[in-house]
Amino acid sequence: MVGGDAYKRGGRRPESEEDLGSGGIVEEDSGTLFGFGETNASSSGVDGSSSMAPMGVFRRRVPDKKKATESLDYEIAEHSVYRAEQAKRATWHQYRYLALKWALALVVGVGTATTAFLINLMVENLAGLKFSWTIQAMASSSAGAYFLYMIFNVLLVASSACIVTYFAPQATGSGIPEVKCYLNGIDLPGILLFRTLVGKVVGSVGSVAGGLAVGKEGPLVHTGSCIAALLSQGGSKRVHLSPKWFREFNNDRDRRDLVTCGACAGVAAAFRAPVGGVLFAIEEAASFWRPQLTWRTFFTTAVVSVTIRALMNACKGESDCGFFGGGGFIIFDINDGQSEYWIYELLPVLILGTLGGLLGSSFNYVNGKLTQWRIKYLYKNHHSSRRHVKVIEAMLVAFITSTFQFCLPLAFSCRECDPDIATCPRPAGVHYGNFVKFTCPGDNQYNDLATIFFNTQDDAIRNLLSSEMEQEYSPTALVTFFCFFFVLAVITYGISVPSGLFVPSILCGAAYGRLVGMLMTSITGNAEIKEGTYALLGAASFIAGAMRMTVSMCVIILELTNNLSLLPLVMFVLLVSKAVADLTGILPIYDLHIHIKKIPLLEHSSERYFRHLSASDAKSKTCVQFGRVEKVGFILDVLKSHTHNGFPVVEAHPTDRVTNETSTLLGIVLRNHLLVVLKKKISFMKDPSEVVDPVLAFQYDLTEFTKPISSQGVKLDEIRLTDEEQNMYVDLKQFVNTSTYAVQEDMSLAKVYQLFRGLGLRHLCVVPKATGVLGVITRKDIVPEHVEAQYPEVKHLSRTNSYGKLSRSPSFGSFSKTKDLGDSLIGTP
Amino acid sequence: MVGGDAYKRGGRRPESEEDLGSGGIVEEDSGTLFGFGETNASSSGVDGSSSMAPMGVFRRRVPDKKKATESLDYEIAEHSVYRAEQAKRATWHQYRYLALKWALALVVGVGTATTAFLINLMVENLAGLKFSWTIQAMASSSAGAYFLYMIFNVLLVASSACIVTYFAPQATGSGIPEVKCYLNGIDLPGILLFRTLVGKVVGSVGSVAGGLAVGKEGPLVHTGSCIAALLSQGGSKRVHLSPKWFREFNNDRDRRDLVTCGACAGVAAAFRAPVGGVLFAIEEAASFWRPQLTWRTFFTTAVVSVTIRALMNACKGESDCGFFGGGGFIIFDINDGQSEYWIYELLPVLILGTLGGLLGSSFNYVNGKLTQWRIKYLYKNHHSSRRHVKVIEAMLVAFITSTFQFCLPLAFSCRECDPDIATCPRPAGVHYGNFVKFTCPGDNQYNDLATIFFNTQDDAIRNLLSSEMEQEYSPTALVTFFCFFFVLAVITYGISVPSGLFVPSILCGAAYGRLVGMLMTSITGNAEIKEGTYALLGAASFIAGAMRMTVSMCVIILELTNNLSLLPLVMFVLLVSKAVADLTGILPIYDLHIHIKKIPLLEHSSERYFRHLSASDAKSKTCVQFGRVEKVGFILDVLKSHTHNGFPVVEAHPTDRVTNETSTLLGIVLRNHLLVVLKKKISFMKDPSEVVDPVLAFQYDLTEFTKPISSQGVKLDEIRLTDEEQNMYVDLKQFVNTSTYAVQEDMSLAKVYQLFRGLGLRHLCVVPKATGVLGVITRKDIVPEHVEAQYPEVKHLSRTNSYGKLSRSPSFGSFSKTKDLGDSLIGTP
Repeated sequence: MVGGDAYKRGGRRPESEEDLGSGGIVEEDSGTLFGFGETNASSSGVDGSSSMAPMGVFRRRVPDKKKATESLDYEIAEHSVYRAEQAKRATWHQYRYLALKWALALVVGVGTATTAFLINLMVENLAGLKFSWTIQAMASSSAGAYFLYMIFNVLLVASSACIVTYFAPQATGSGIPEVKCYLNGIDLPGILLFRTLVGKVVGSVGSVAGGLAVGKEGPLVHTGSCIAALLSQGGSKRVHLSPKWFREFNNDRDRRDLVTCGACAGVAAAFRAPVGGVLFAIEEAASFWRPQLTWRTFFTTAVVSVTIRALMNACKGESDCGFFGGGGFIIFDINDGQSEYWIYELLPVLILGTLGGLLGSSFNYVNGKLTQWRIKYLYKNHHSSRRHVKVIEAMLVAFITSTFQFCLPLAFSCRECDPDIATCPRPAGVHYGNFVKFTCPGDNQYNDLATIFFNTQDDAIRNLLSSEMEQEYSPTALVTFFCFFFVLAVITYGISVPSGLFVPSILCGAAYGRLVGMLMTSITGNAEIKEGTYALLGAASFIAGAMRMTVSMCVIILELTNNLSLLPLVMFVLLVSKAVADLTGILPIYDLHIHIKKIPLLEHSSERYFRHLSASDAKSKTCVQFGRVEKVGFILDVLKSHTHNGFPVVEAHPTDRVTNETSTLLGIVLRNHLLVVLKKKISFMKDPSEVVDPVLAFQYDLTEFTKPISSQGVKLDEIRLTDEEQNMYVDLKQFVNTSTYAVQEDMSLAKVYQLFRGLGLRHLCVVPKATGVLGVITRKDIVPEHVEAQYPEVKHLSRTNSYGKLSRSPSFGSFSKTKDLGDSLIGTP
Repeated sequence: MVGGDAYKRGGRRPESEEDLGSGGIVEEDSGTLFGFGETNASSSGVDGSSSMAPMGVFRRRVPDKKKATESLDYEIAEHSVYRAEQAKRATWHQYRYLALKWALALVVGVGTATTAFLINLMVENLAGLKFSWTIQAMASSSAGAYFLYMIFNVLLVASSACIVTYFAPQATGSGIPEVKCYLNGIDLPGILLFRTLVGKVVGSVGSVAGGLAVGKEGPLVHTGSCIAALLSQGGSKRVHLSPKWFREFNNDRDRRDLVTCGACAGVAAAFRAPVGGVLFAIEEAASFWRPQLTWRTFFTTAVVSVTIRALMNACKGESDCGFFGGGGFIIFDINDGQSEYWIYELLPVLILGTLGGLLGSSFNYVNGKLTQWRIKYLYKNHHSSRRHVKVIEAMLVAFITSTFQFCLPLAFSCRECDPDIATCPRPAGVHYGNFVKFTCPGDNQYNDLATIFFNTQDDAIRNLLSSEMEQEYSPTALVTFFCFFFVLAVITYGISVPSGLFVPSILCGAAYGRLVGMLMTSITGNAEIKEGTYALLGAASFIAGAMRMTVSMCVIILELTNNLSLLPLVMFVLLVSKAVADLTGILPIYDLHIHIKKIPLLEHSSERYFRHLSASDAKSKTCVQFGRVEKVGFILDVLKSHTHNGFPVVEAHPTDRVTNETSTLLGIVLRNHLLVVLKKKISFMKDPSEVVDPVLAFQYDLTEFTKPISSQGVKLDEIRLTDEEQNMYVDLKQFVNTSTYAVQEDMSLAKVYQLFRGLGLRHLCVVPKATGVLGVITRKDIVPEHVEAQYPEVKHLSRTNSYGKLSRSPSFGSFSKTKDLGDSLIGTP
């Protein structure tokens, strides 16, 4: 077992620096790893624009094939091709872009809703078939029924584990941590691919129908994100359906927005909670939020809501959806529950909150330990046998789960039905609902443990939250259920199947919540107080303890139960539970798994001690940088020998006095942009002092510079250069992001962190202290009114887009007229 | 009338640069206005650390009394006093701070809820008394009743107008635009003072009870914010209740969080919609949001919810709350309404959305024109007569409103009651509810126009949304009501009383919504379709058209109606209406008023043409800056002659070669910090080359450096310096924010804007291009794990706070042990 304090936020410390980079997780570029001689540390050592000096010792050659975890490029790189692209755009382009954006949001909504519906349909039908067969078999022999039930479950889970393990390894688990990381700016390999989507959907059906202690809600968030990411791909090149205007969203920035919509759609579809979906993204999933996104995600979830309703209505009609019908979507609807509350109920709510906080964080703690143990001991073998272990593990868990589900209720005596309730016991031939008869002999008997254990989990939740009958469950049944289910949930989350955590959390919480409710009704004797209400509050408390969501969970519960009167109680239980869980110092479950996987997620606020460090403490001592004009062969060498993804470009200016050179930072050039330039070759020039023809920028296509999702873009192998080409030069100024953010060396790291995290940067230059100040910008200076007053021509230009009217002839004669724009278009040579 | 395109976002252009600064609104510092000779433009011209050179011509002396609109300091200024304060802090300090933060959130919640309850109590009682007297008087004479009603209203409104005009001018209007500006970082003078709070509460009671077409919901947001801001003041110095630990929140950064909580609490109290309150802040009010804030605002609104419930229960019991009872809080509860919808209902929803978008934005347009006209012609006179005009205007509006409310229903014939409805007509002696009898002669008759016009507005909303009776209103009554009420609402918003916009918007929207509903029921003949539902959808559409809120409005409506089944319809009507309204190009009402008042609000995204400009285009050509060591008298002169609030401090380094000086930017020093230094005098030194004793920093108190709300802090008049003192020196390095954000001159303005807006800056230095690059920071470098691995001692320091153990003796002997920290504490001399 590794150090326990790894769970605490303050204690997140890898064993060594190398540790952080191991496992293919943090093979992040830093631009600062390798030598370049000491000369690099100060600007005076950089020797000029066409620095052909040897780049120092290249310590290792990085295999190009290995796909490491990289950051995403949320920054717009303002290089000449980008500016040229802007120049080409007419006004209608903007409208097309906007229309397409909304159309994609619509498609994401419809797609996610349909997928969610299909998953539900398949799960309900498979589970219905399973229970139907088992109950038929039970008439003849319990043992036979058990074997049938167990085999059915193990097979389903095995299919799920196989597809996840052998075909789509990224589809394992809940997917919410992965989506959260993606939206934080981390490009985990393969998490948003089509194969992951398939694995998630099929695997989810298998694991949920197979009776595991998992839900389908978490995986739906991942599913929605996958659908959104695939739509942003701009069609498929393989089937030759990739129009240029459709490829426009194939960049990290637009994709981030779409994936956010997808995640919202996933939650909205899972719980039929459209507003909850939007809030989930705001509170939990998204790291960057813009007001415009609120509106767009809202639209997406509205579409989801309507689509699911339409699909469910279609199933209600003539068409036969098999066992799908009463079950499926709305998890619980306790309209018949409590509609008033008394002030003394705050005490049990406090108790529930505390319980939820403690139990939720113990869940995280134990599950985290188990996950670390799995990584360290269970999965330590080499690739293929590790995969077999995973499948066998999943089958074993399925076997244990099935055995508990079937055998435990056998040990429980039957309870008498309330004669007023017509559906007690559940009529023969119905495979969902309350009051499961199981093996009970009498006509008016039901088995209370079987009602919650030997049932689909959606039904189990409904039954636990039901207010149909007081004392429906014996305390022993509830305690037994909680203990076994808690253990099952702990061991299940982490095996190689898609597994959501909402449903197990709700079930665990509802079990002890109902216990507290029973206590309350017997103590107070108040007939208005319902056990079901406490079950709901318990569910909320466990979720808040394990996941620490408050507002979004509150709205989701609101939308699920359709009962607003209990809102203050729900709010308080969530607050207490989260506070207690936070006090334990154990991380929320998703963050815990992110931390165990050593993914460099950037939280919103920096650590306190960051204020004691400065920017120059964080950057490494040396740095690989290019001069303005570099030899092609040299660039290729650097790319081959370094994994960095961004290289600063520095231009030297010989001043009057020969001995005193000054240099300036031009900006950062990205690795994949360099690869495109090397592959395309049109920017090569024979003479390093040649002046770049600005029209060259128009010969590139901006979409060439963007990487498709989970891909490296142009690969090093694709670049074939002759010796002659290798001896040519490239003026890197054209491809530099001229608006690179830079901080002075003495800025406190806390503020650097703020900047980096707040703007979603990938590279941040650390520069020497500024040589004086040219001016100060304040609020007034950048209010659009003021800027327009100063530069009325710019507004006009922006409106009529005379930028687009620039002649594209090689002479660029018209440029002289719009000098300012010409400058910013190509950059003065 | 001024230019119509001022309404469109693209057309927001002041007539001249001076225009922007006029009216005391944008007297913003820019640090860039005045000459300093040409030498300033380049760093080489700054002549050294103890630059005693004359500062050029000071063109105007700024009167110190005038309180101009400034920006707020959301940035932490990391100067030596701040670092010393950090060093003094023990670990428990952090817990006290946290506990206090939550305690304040609790108090804000309780305070806002209580205030909201009191306002409701007073409004209901005053309005109840009014209607009771009027109805009694109607028995004898209609004319007498009219005069009684009218006089009552005019007096109430006059009292409201007087208190607002003569006592608390900032309490006028809804207050939401002001709060929005405050949270954007603009310190509008006086908007969060105690007198404004009093004016808002008392004025709100008067204007709402006086029957004006205004609501009390908008003002409650402002009320909540005022309460929060006052709590952050850290007690009152006047009553000697100002413990030091309590003053800790007396800074712009912590106050922003508290005011956000207050705004949430206001919405939560107004609509009894706790989740809606949080969302309102996220979507509309707040410009900066942190995940931690979600939780804290959520807590505040939960407290509000429970407090109001408790207070209302207290009123239900023995205690006599007068006319308060059936009315008051929950505006509408249409649980008895429609619970299903059909696909063909999307068409009327589309129509309603379009109508709402068009009518909502016409409301904005006309109201904006009227407001401009008022400013230009009505209020153009000198101060005191302008104030009388405002009061007379308010009384006139009250007179017109009362006359319409009383006389229009007289022109309408009575309608027969449905005999099944027991409360039709409203029994005598009851002063609230549906089916107002008014002057109807028959026992089973009611006047439909009086039901919505001659009633409190809360009741009018309930009646319009009621599904009790089909065809309750004649189409003529609805059309008449809409037309007159729309006009009344347009002329009322903008007069000198506290006036919310939610209630008028809901009433306008509900009127045409109900019309569409009547059309639908008569066309489809579907008995399940309720007119009340359409009234609700209409209300939503008008709000979305006028205010453009979507998610928050949706949740508020959800919480108000306690009916989730219509969620998709509500979502669609909101989306359509917002889209249509946005297409008209007319700004949302709050933004429109912000724009008319010429407040430099920074929107989230910059204008498109910002990408064509660069940082050096935005900054002015010259800039006032200090050398590192400056003469006291010189600093005082600069402060007297400039309004700037931040001054860059530059240090010159004589290099080996005498002719070639280099200089570096140390950071920005703030005006109010300089004033504190000049007042306290302890940092003065006789010799400019003296080395600063680092213990000096401990003799300041950090709270001295923070400005109380709506105050200038230390004033120039307070500084009395002898000639000798004026000839002494100050080393400004101690008071400089060493972590000043700076951008290179060629960074595109779009990115500058992003940085400025995203981090909530007040000053941003524009510096020359960097002389090379020292390194690059990437994600990996600032992940806490990595930083801790590199600097294990820092983590330890942060935890045990050995910072706090630093000796405070003048010798500072212990400093050598913790060299790094000593450096960052004082800055190496």
